[in-house]
Formats: sequence, structure tokens, C-alpha cells
Amino acid sequence: MTKSSVIDANSFTDADDAVLSATNRDIIERSRRIIGPNFRLFYRDPVHLVRGKGSYVFDDTGRRYLDAYNNVPSLGHCHPAVVEAVHRQMQTFNSHTRYIQRAIADYGEKLLATMPGMDHLMMSNSGSEANDLALRVAKRATGGTGIIVTSEAYHGTTASAAGISPSLGPNHRLDPDVETVRLPEYGLAAEAGVRFKVEVEGAIARMQQRGVKPAAILVDTIFASDGIRDETTILGPAVDAVHAAGGLFIADEVQPGFCRTGAHFWGFVRHGVTPDLVTMGKPMGNGVPVAGMAATAPALESFGTTVPYFNTYGGTTVPVAAATATLDVMLSQNLAQHSETMGEYLRARLERLAVGEARIGSIRQAGLFIGVEFVAGPEKSAGPDSPFALEVMNTMRELGVLISIAGKDSNVLKMRPLLSYTETEADLLIDALCESIAVAHRVMDTGR
Amino acid sequence: MTKSSVIDANSFTDADDAVLSATNRDIIERSRRIIGPNFRLFYRDPVHLVRGKGSYVFDDTGRRYLDAYNNVPSLGHCHPAVVEAVHRQMQTFNSHTRYIQRAIADYGEKLLATMPGMDHLMMSNSGSEANDLALRVAKRATGGTGIIVTSEAYHGTTASAAGISPSLGPNHRLDPDVETVRLPEYGLAAEAGVRFKVEVEGAIARMQQRGVKPAAILVDTIFASDGIRDETTILGPAVDAVHAAGGLFIADEVQPGFCRTGAHFWGFVRHGVTPDLVTMGKPMGNGVPVAGMAATAPALESFGTTVPYFNTYGGTTVPVAAATATLDVMLSQNLAQHSETMGEYLRARLERLAVGEARIGSIRQAGLFIGVEFVAGPEKSAGPDSPFALEVMNTMRELGVLISIAGKDSNVLKMRPLLSYTETEADLLIDALCESIAVAHRVMDTGR
Repeated sequence: MTKSSVIDANSFTDADDAVLSATNRDIIERSRRIIGPNFRLFYRDPVHLVRGKGSYVFDDTGRRYLDAYNNVPSLGHCHPAVVEAVHRQMQTFNSHTRYIQRAIADYGEKLLATMPGMDHLMMSNSGSEANDLALRVAKRATGGTGIIVTSEAYHGTTASAAGISPSLGPNHRLDPDVETVRLPEYGLAAEAGVRFKVEVEGAIARMQQRGVKPAAILVDTIFASDGIRDETTILGPAVDAVHAAGGLFIADEVQPGFCRTGAHFWGFVRHGVTPDLVTMGKPMGNGVPVAGMAATAPALESFGTTVPYFNTYGGTTVPVAAATATLDVMLSQNLAQHSETMGEYLRARLERLAVGEARIGSIRQAGLFIGVEFVAGPEKSAGPDSPFALEVMNTMRELGVLISIAGKDSNVLKMRPLLSYTETEADLLIDALCESIAVAHRVMDTGR
Repeated sequence: MTKSSVIDANSFTDADDAVLSATNRDIIERSRRIIGPNFRLFYRDPVHLVRGKGSYVFDDTGRRYLDAYNNVPSLGHCHPAVVEAVHRQMQTFNSHTRYIQRAIADYGEKLLATMPGMDHLMMSNSGSEANDLALRVAKRATGGTGIIVTSEAYHGTTASAAGISPSLGPNHRLDPDVETVRLPEYGLAAEAGVRFKVEVEGAIARMQQRGVKPAAILVDTIFASDGIRDETTILGPAVDAVHAAGGLFIADEVQPGFCRTGAHFWGFVRHGVTPDLVTMGKPMGNGVPVAGMAATAPALESFGTTVPYFNTYGGTTVPVAAATATLDVMLSQNLAQHSETMGEYLRARLERLAVGEARIGSIRQAGLFIGVEFVAGPEKSAGPDSPFALEVMNTMRELGVLISIAGKDSNVLKMRPLLSYTETEADLLIDALCESIAVAHRVMDTGR
């Protein structure tokens, strides 16, 4: 495992002393043989999940876990409205967009109404495909090839999306026309915008010096793999700088979108910036593979009129049914507001927990996207404490609460409570976090 | 519409005098507004499909059509085994591969048992993602960047897959390290292998001259967008040449795989060649988005051990349930043999139909993948007749049979009868073809 790869920080390894049943050991061995060397599992003691309901999942022994991580089944596991919509459509018809289809027009209109400034929606099968398409569209629209991303960004699995994902680690080569920019230190809200703009202007200058024309800045508007950043002051001036240089702004809403970051429904709205292209995926169908790219008419014009694009599964009737049911639940139950309210409740409890806890460096929260940063001590110079964070995360798993970890230094707990949370689940999460921090102190500070 | 783009040959345009209901006109206008300029529909008179059952689909007026085109719902529309498996899994649990999951190991073992020579299976969401990953893996394994594809190939929508897809037309730029090769003229079975090998060796030499190291030859083993090629003599020597130059062979089985091309289950087996990487998609889940890349252990080794790869939806439990149900039906009902048998039945009827029909240049058939080439007259020099083929295709749609068109010159009917066909459907298909050819003669030869 390479330390610098956030994707690998939370991984089971054979060296870990997991308490595996014979059955689970067998499944792991067979899975590794089938999937090959890319096979990875979460946690030092991996979980075998077989059932989910609402905010909870259950393992093969019947043990219950609170899901505080998975933002694909964002409405809750096996949400009946989505299960029912998919079943109805699976029994009726499922085909592609080359036949007249009412559902995709209905869905597109409803979705775009949530998304200020966007004119079009092209559907695909994954956030990776959506980001990949957005890069093609931005390059075609601007005639440029230069892409600006943050220094720990992750934007997907295709060659093009991976090519702008520095978090994939040192063995992975970025595309040559990519420039990475560092986010300002956390907590400098007032100056963050100016500082980030200077960073981005530097990237534009470096591009131009080597003859690369800027095509876009592409950022996850919650900066998840950069450690989760809740400030809304960062983006605006930098986006203006990119626009001034002829580039587009692509908002990667795969993680922050669909109510995840609170009342604004979309992360970019929180920042008060209007993108040229917006990509989305994960919670879009509450588990059914479906994703999309929204675009302004000017941004899409050149690509749309010159390059044929047909996505076999993209926009087929079953994924559209899942996406429609998911969106309907979000809108009819005003889950964006619920995300905001529950997020505030969780933040308040976290802030009380952090009082006098020297290991907590910061709490980063927008709606139901929460980061808790762990540091080595109360001094500003103490630096990140990844082992402590990993101990907390693995202890929470032992206590029956599933979360993960993020950030360059793998020292930020990554928590994405489901939109189905009530105060009951929020309390369970914080209680488990409290206990896990106590355990981590015992283990890390005293050596068990 | 650019004539050279096979993807656009079968397209509705406003100029066409479609007989659209007010409802359908409204849906089309809304869809175009939502999707934007990439929006396309099949046929000069597009079809609004709302229901499917077995080999048939139904439009919004209740009219029945025989599906002789769609190879995603390959087992038949709304196949009960897949509907049921998906519903069961949707109600139970749907999550990703970072938790222990028995189903992916079970599925992988069963699938790889059908695929001689392959060791690993990595799951994704579309044929595009699978081809995109295969390119990443091949480049990492060989240290090369050069990719060889056929001159009319189509391999997907991601930047990388589109970058090796010359069929996307003249406005689309191929990746600089791609070399295209022309297939030998149809019908030269005995010489085809040597001729194609010479073409491929030329491509390797051109690469090497400009300092590009070969990474792979990637071909659709039924050469669908090159006009459907049923000869099995083409590939072997060319693959040997690529291997000798240090490159891999990637078999794109997205169209030919999963029983489509007859008794061998996979297209590459028909050709008697063993790939290093195999990509698959379309019929894999009978409609649910699911795809995959199979690999030999040596081909995957370098990528797998150096680059993290995690696909959020890829290999999640619902798509795996759909894929498992689909594969189980294919294996338990021996649909590969059924494809072979029904294909032979259709070929026999087609050959009788072609006797004395000067416009039919050739019949290309492997299992239930069928091409009928139309030419301008009996002389070898007469050349392709796209208007005639398009007239036949649109007449078949009017008669209630859905097919499409392929090939550089858009003169080859593309027919993919579903695996659910019996002789009843096969007869319907050929009867409609017969009548459509008569109509096309009337329209094209006499001007109506």
C-alpha cells in the first residue's frame, strides 16, 4: 500500500489479523483469484454485508451496522419507492434513447429545474463516464486541452478521468496537460478565495508558458478526496480567473450533489457559482447505475453538433425510472432541507465532542457530508495523525458503524450519513465516534 | 448528417416526412431540448416503444414489432428470470465490492469457465468502460501506446474508446498513436488471413517508424461497424504479428459475445485465437447496465499491482444478480447452440431469398448476428447501394420489424435476432425482408 493514495488507506491486507470465518476467508480467496490484483476490501476486519434496510445494513451473521458512509443508497437501503419503480419498469420495457421515450424528457425537465443555469442533460452510466464526457465537451468548446484539478482530486476510472486524478498515487501518471492546484489551508475562510485564485492563475500561467490552452477547471465542490472542505469562499474568484482565460468550470457533483451537502441540493449552488458543465452519479438512482452530465447550451454546442454520441445503457428506461423515483422522493420530502437540518444537529454534537479533545483538528460539514480531522496534538505544528484516524475508523466498524477516511494524509474521517437519518441514527453515530476516540486514545497513546 | 458516419446513417431528421402524432411530436421536441444537439432517433419515422415481451416490442398505439435488432435484451424483453433476480436483490441489498460479496466470486467463476484462457474478471458499467480499462491495462502491460483498430471500428464513448473509433466520422480526431487497418475485401476467405496480417504489419511498421511502441490490436470479433464479417480466417495471423511486436490482443466481445455469434459462446473462440484481454457488455445483464473486462494473469499483472482501480457501481450486487440470471439462462438452455441452429435456419432462408436477387451482394452470418449487403447491381464493380439498404430498413420498420444498418457505406442490413427466436420469428423476419426488398425495388428502381 502506498501511503499517499487515499484510495488505499482504508484497506484490508492479509497482514491484518482479521477474525475471518472459514466462509468469509473462502469468499475472499475466490474473489481475489477472480478479480485479480486490484481486489480490495474496506477495514482491517472486512465486513460481509448481505442485507440493507433504511439507514442500516446487516452482515452474514445477522449483526446490524449503521451505514454512515455509502452515498449511493442515499435515500436508505432498498428504498421501497425505487425498488417498486425499477420492478415496474423491468416488467414493462427497458430500451435505449434511439426510440421515442417520454420518461427521459420528463426526468430531464424535472432535474434541470433543480439546477440553476443548466440547459441540457446527457445521461450515462457512471460518474466516471460523466466526467470523461465533460472533459471531451470542454475541450471541444474551448479548443483547449489544459485541465486544472486540486492536488488530491479523484474524478473517476476511465483513462481520461484517471488522468486528472492525482489521488491515484505515485505509480499513476497524470495527463500531460493537467495542472494541479493546492487548496488553501483549512480555516482561512476570508482569504481562501484570493489564495486559491492565485494558485489557479499560477496553473494557467504554467499552462500558457508551455503552449497549452486552458480548457477547464474541474473540481468536486465538497473537495472530498482533498479532505472534505466546507468553506464556500474558495471557488468563486478562481472560476472567474479560468473563465477569463477562456476555460470552463466543470462542477463534479458526483459526491456533493443530490441533497448531500444541504439545502442547496447541489454543491455548486452553495458556492454561489454557475458551472458550464455539471457531472453527477452515485446517489442518482439510489443504487441502480445511472449518471449524467448537465450543460449550458453554449458549452455543449460545439461537441453536440460535430461529434456523434450514443450511450447504449445511458438513459435507458430502467435507470431513468430509478432516477425519477429517487428525485421524486428527494423533492417531495424536501430532503435537501432535511440534509441541512440533520447536518446542523450532527455539527452541534460534534462541536461539543471536540471541546477539550486535542486530537480533533477541525470539523468540516455541509449538510450530511462530514469530515473530522485528526491531528497529533493541540499545537498547530503537530500535523496530521493518520494512525489515530484509522484506529477510530476501524473501532467504529467494530462498534457497528461504517465510515471511511479521506485527505492527502488519510487523517480525516469521511462520514456521509444517509438522507434517511433521524436524530436516533445521528446520536448512534456520534456516540460510536465518542467511544472510538476513547479507544483510539487507549490504543495509540498507551499502546493498548 | 455526415454520410461517412455509420452511427448517423439510420437517423430521423426533421426533413423526413414522419407521420408523428401530436404526443410524439411533443416528446421529440422536449427530448431534443433536454438532451441537446446529440439527440438522435432511429428511422425516418421514429418508433415510440412502451412495452416489450420476449422477441416483441409494442408502441404507444399497441402495435406490435418484431425486435430483430436489440442485443441488449438478448434473452428476450423483460425476461422473467432476470426481472425476478433483480427484484429479489433490489429488495435485499445492493452495494459495492469493498465489502465481502459472495455473488461476484460465484459469477466470475461461472463466467470465466466459458472463456478459455482467461484468469480474471473486472466488472464495470458499460462496454465503453471495459474497453477504456483494457486500453489502460494493455498500455501498462506493454509499455507501449500504439493501438491498432479496423478502419470503421466503433469501440465506445469515453475519450479513450472514442479515440480508437474511426466510425465517429470526420469531425472526430483519433488518438495520435492509433493506426487503422483495412479488412480484406469480403469473400476472400482463404487469403484473408495473410492479407490482414500484411495490413497489420504495415501498421506496426508505421508506428515503429514514428517511435510509437505497439500496445495492442483491439477488434470487435464480428467486425460489426465494418459491415459484419463472418470469416474466421481473418484474425489469427494478424494477432501473431502483434504478439511478435510485443503487443496484446484485445477481443471486443461487446457485440459478438454471450451466444450472439453461435455455438462458441464468444466470438474470439470462433476465430481460434486466445486474447490477452476480453471486453464485454450489452447483453451481459439483459438490460441492466453491467459490463466487464476479462484478462489473463500476465496481462493484468502490471496494472493490477501498481494502479488502484475501484468502480463504484461496477460489480455491485444488483448488476451481478442480473448478470448471473442472464448467464444461467444462457447456459441452462444452451442458447449458444440455439443461436447456432437458428442462425443456420435463417441463413438457409436468406440464401434462397438471394437467389436471383441481384441487389444482395453477400450474406454475412454467424449465429444470430446477420448482415445482408446491398449492391447496385450484379457486376462486381457495381458498388454499395446505401439508399436501397436504407429503403429496405425503413420499409421493414413500416412492416413491423426492427433492424438497423452498418458498414462504411451504410449498405449492410444489421440484424440481431434475439436469442428467444423460434422459427416463427425467423420466418416473420425473412418474410418482412422479402417484402421490403420488393418495395425497395418499386421505390428505387421505378421512383414509386
